[in-house]
Amino acid sequence: MPAITARPYDYHLPTTASVALLIIDMQRDFLEPGGFGDALGNDVQRLQAIVPTVQKLQAAFRALHLPIFQTVEGHQSDLSDCPPSKRDRGKGALKIGDRGPMGRILVLGEPGNGIISDLAPLSGETVIAKPGKGAFYNTNLEFLLKTHNISHLILTGVTTEVCVQTTMREANDRGYECLLVEDGTASYFPEFKQATLEMICAQGGIVGWCGSSEQVLAGLKQFQPASL
Amino acid sequence: MPAITARPYDYHLPTTASVALLIIDMQRDFLEPGGFGDALGNDVQRLQAIVPTVQKLQAAFRALHLPIFQTVEGHQSDLSDCPPSKRDRGKGALKIGDRGPMGRILVLGEPGNGIISDLAPLSGETVIAKPGKGAFYNTNLEFLLKTHNISHLILTGVTTEVCVQTTMREANDRGYECLLVEDGTASYFPEFKQATLEMICAQGGIVGWCGSSEQVLAGLKQFQPASL
Repeated sequence: MPAITARPYDYHLPTTASVALLIIDMQRDFLEPGGFGDALGNDVQRLQAIVPTVQKLQAAFRALHLPIFQTVEGHQSDLSDCPPSKRDRGKGALKIGDRGPMGRILVLGEPGNGIISDLAPLSGETVIAKPGKGAFYNTNLEFLLKTHNISHLILTGVTTEVCVQTTMREANDRGYECLLVEDGTASYFPEFKQATLEMICAQGGIVGWCGSSEQVLAGLKQFQPASL
Repeated sequence: MPAITARPYDYHLPTTASVALLIIDMQRDFLEPGGFGDALGNDVQRLQAIVPTVQKLQAAFRALHLPIFQTVEGHQSDLSDCPPSKRDRGKGALKIGDRGPMGRILVLGEPGNGIISDLAPLSGETVIAKPGKGAFYNTNLEFLLKTHNISHLILTGVTTEVCVQTTMREANDRGYECLLVEDGTASYFPEFKQATLEMICAQGGIVGWCGSSEQVLAGLKQFQPASL
């Protein structure tokens, strides 16, 4: 069985195609200057730094014909799927649904809600719109994973301690074996990223595994196309 | 509107009884010597230290006739609700379902699965068995909260970065306004507890609020029984 060297111990991959790449919220509003994240005073360069790494993983999964799921955090234009608590929280000047430099903030289909061009999905790759931080809440992600017979998830994206962590915890409760790519995830707050990585693989991997993109790519190479 | 002084800003409570106390997993196996937590080499005294604080909150909610929900992490005796990934993770000597010093590990109804006597629920108080770390996954918690018209949750219990955090993130996605009681939650790893508190109330309270039990109790005193 192919294995990825990881913390807290080797992450074993099934021999058949039951592993998927999950790319969380690499959307313009969180990553580009002039977006929502930037407007809130965050340093978007921290998030941009992982793009080449996520691209490498995306290319490797494509080459092996393994499924890739991307998510974007966004709401219906009438905000009917946005709890008032979410819109009002933080008392910021810009709220969800307001008009920002890239269209209405966190509204589906607006320019800022699109995935950055460097990671644009190919035709046939799935993008899941999610109203919460967790990608399983009120989405069809679990159904899609079951349809594809996925048991193992390689997680990347932003931000580590918010949407990525929440999604990984949801996936873990649902029985998925998850590995978070340490250099394929980022936060506006490096100390929160680091703490999240440690929490996840503590206690024998209570939420899952952590490994580098290099380790993941080396593990994927053990797949022979014939076995897929 | 009554308010609790909290981070990152005051936490406003509704004037009617739409606030509940949520006590996570204060079960014998995690808190008592000889239990599962202890067997894994953890210092259970860290968790025991919060018991008097949770008792004070429990008493205050009882005095105001406000609802209290407790959870226990546990599985059906045939483990049909325990994903193999959860049972196998960590490669520990003791696994879920094995016989331990307090009965079968994390199996519902076993002695170790009971809530510690100091926090035993009264008749009519709800205890929710949960198969995951998050209290919303595959439970009727959300249905019960809706039945009680609850919009605000005061969270306590163990462990901060695992079950408490996961539950608070689930609740936040579902539109609940959550406050985590800083001295009413504990972890085997103090650094993970602290990091979790900081992550939760960062970015304008992205997951919710943090406050002390003293602040919560002071806030609750603003409720007049007549307004309930």
